Amino acid sequence: MSIHGDAVPDGSWRPPYLLYLGNAPDDLAIKTARGLAYWRPDWCVGQYRNAHCKPTLGLRDLGMAQARAEGADTMVIGTANAGGTMGPDIVADAIAALDAGLNVVAGLHQKLRENPDIVAAARRNGRSLFDARDPAPGIPVGNGRPRAGRRLLTVGTDCSVGKMYTTLAIERAMRQRGCRADFRATGQTGIFIAGAGVPVDAVVADFISGAVEWISPARLDDGWDLIEGQGSLFHPSYAGVSLGLLHGAQPDALVLCHEPGRPHMRGLSGYPLPELRRCLEANLTAARLTNPAVKAVGVALNTSGLPAEQAQSICQATSDQLGLPCQDPVTMGVDAIVDNLLACFAN
Amino acid sequence: MSIHGDAVPDGSWRPPYLLYLGNAPDDLAIKTARGLAYWRPDWCVGQYRNAHCKPTLGLRDLGMAQARAEGADTMVIGTANAGGTMGPDIVADAIAALDAGLNVVAGLHQKLRENPDIVAAARRNGRSLFDARDPAPGIPVGNGRPRAGRRLLTVGTDCSVGKMYTTLAIERAMRQRGCRADFRATGQTGIFIAGAGVPVDAVVADFISGAVEWISPARLDDGWDLIEGQGSLFHPSYAGVSLGLLHGAQPDALVLCHEPGRPHMRGLSGYPLPELRRCLEANLTAARLTNPAVKAVGVALNTSGLPAEQAQSICQATSDQLGLPCQDPVTMGVDAIVDNLLACFAN
Repeated sequence: MSIHGDAVPDGSWRPPYLLYLGNAPDDLAIKTARGLAYWRPDWCVGQYRNAHCKPTLGLRDLGMAQARAEGADTMVIGTANAGGTMGPDIVADAIAALDAGLNVVAGLHQKLRENPDIVAAARRNGRSLFDARDPAPGIPVGNGRPRAGRRLLTVGTDCSVGKMYTTLAIERAMRQRGCRADFRATGQTGIFIAGAGVPVDAVVADFISGAVEWISPARLDDGWDLIEGQGSLFHPSYAGVSLGLLHGAQPDALVLCHEPGRPHMRGLSGYPLPELRRCLEANLTAARLTNPAVKAVGVALNTSGLPAEQAQSICQATSDQLGLPCQDPVTMGVDAIVDNLLACFAN
Repeated sequence: MSIHGDAVPDGSWRPPYLLYLGNAPDDLAIKTARGLAYWRPDWCVGQYRNAHCKPTLGLRDLGMAQARAEGADTMVIGTANAGGTMGPDIVADAIAALDAGLNVVAGLHQKLRENPDIVAAARRNGRSLFDARDPAPGIPVGNGRPRAGRRLLTVGTDCSVGKMYTTLAIERAMRQRGCRADFRATGQTGIFIAGAGVPVDAVVADFISGAVEWISPARLDDGWDLIEGQGSLFHPSYAGVSLGLLHGAQPDALVLCHEPGRPHMRGLSGYPLPELRRCLEANLTAARLTNPAVKAVGVALNTSGLPAEQAQSICQATSDQLGLPCQDPVTMGVDAIVDNLLACFAN
């Protein structure tokens, strides 16, 4: 599972990618593809859209055979819909991609390998299929034993507040400074970006912390594992995943992620977001079970819904309130957070 | 999933049971069978043991054909071993049971229905197989919405401290008083005893709280759902399961379960048990996310390792310390705990 430097996926699927948008109705539906285009632009040859698809990544529109001719190796089904199902249009397009000589990977709940027509197309073309929501077999139960190396985990007030972007931004900033630092993916988009990882929300419940121990094993090179968080301890649907992830990560450092202005927890109108300090304290308290020395090192805000001036002032106010550096990773970078991380763990 | 009164399993398997001990090496290995024999003696026709099996439930030793002739409908593979695997002896005995006309149910991680020889034997005899560790399909994601009815959840300092026994003892005591009260099973032994339930440690991580909402839906009859807890918020391997269970249960009442004298968390020599008050507070704090009115109503101690006099004094000391009734459900019953439960929720 170890991916370093400019490594590529260690499975039988690999970049360059053709990003499949299909019939995606809106920008939310192409979140996974957008993450790949943003974080791994060099891996993306182009995008594939059906006739009436409005959303775009700004990449070249390519047909499947054309993409293959220009070097694409794998088509990534980077769309998401309610329920994670695979409509007949996606099935037909996956088969067309396989017939054009591409491998196909997807992160839907419905699996490519459970569709007999897709499996048959892969076989007749000698191509590979990969379902990112399928955990690898053999994940052990967590053992909680202290392990070597340093680990940072992003935690959140809610789902989809920027934990993956923050973690990847920290990886980039640390590498720019010459630090050894590796993003460890726990969700489908992160797995496509890293080329490895475990879909922690899809493992069997008894194995959540074990899955995280498994993707961030002991390391002795003085480097950091930067682990992508999931969900929130305050989300009634998914907090179990977040707690198991926190325990399995044994984080030395936490970065709290939040989107100001969100009216309620994602999908649950009856649940307000937790206050930032309370959320951070709850995460630190829970994290101490497996790493009593855990420290908070920064706060990352997703201010994409705010004017730039207000974004600056809310970051400043949050920083003052919590006594931690606070930035929007996309518009402000994460240098202040990394400065604090390195200062906290200088020895 | 609703099981009331003297209801029996709603699947195609049902009592009377033949309890399979096979080659179990020790008492720990027959924990599931012992739970059934203790809580559902009327359902158990006898036990099946191979020649060198030392542990016993004190039931009559019956051959498979003999058990069938005496009315047994289903053989329960009530043994457990490290890894939950199914050795060749178990496979052979399952086939023999099917050939004798019994259904076969098991709670191993390895599934009966994944063994082609067992499946073939079930087919040729027109018998059913049931894997208790296999969650039913269609479990939804938790929604956290407040629902009607009252729910009690047992929580623990650790795994295997008596949560299932305590929950079943409360069911029995409440029914003896004429209260409507139904045990809701979340583990394999509980599922065999209740004839229904969900193996919450075996559901996909995103669905933990949803699974618990699903087995304890809104009820309008003024009765109580008594939900079997699993694991512990303080167990580094399984705390995610415990937190999702707590959120999904939306408990009105908690009973804290503990085994005094345990040297460390089950399976993890580096982890001491949490202090009782701290453990209870952590559970109450987490439970308030989905039910702000949650109350602790009692403490159940497993004092099976202590002399009777010491058991009494430790219950008294615990009661004084926490300001809650404290009993060993097996040796002292749970009347004081039920008294307090009913007093706390009299209106």
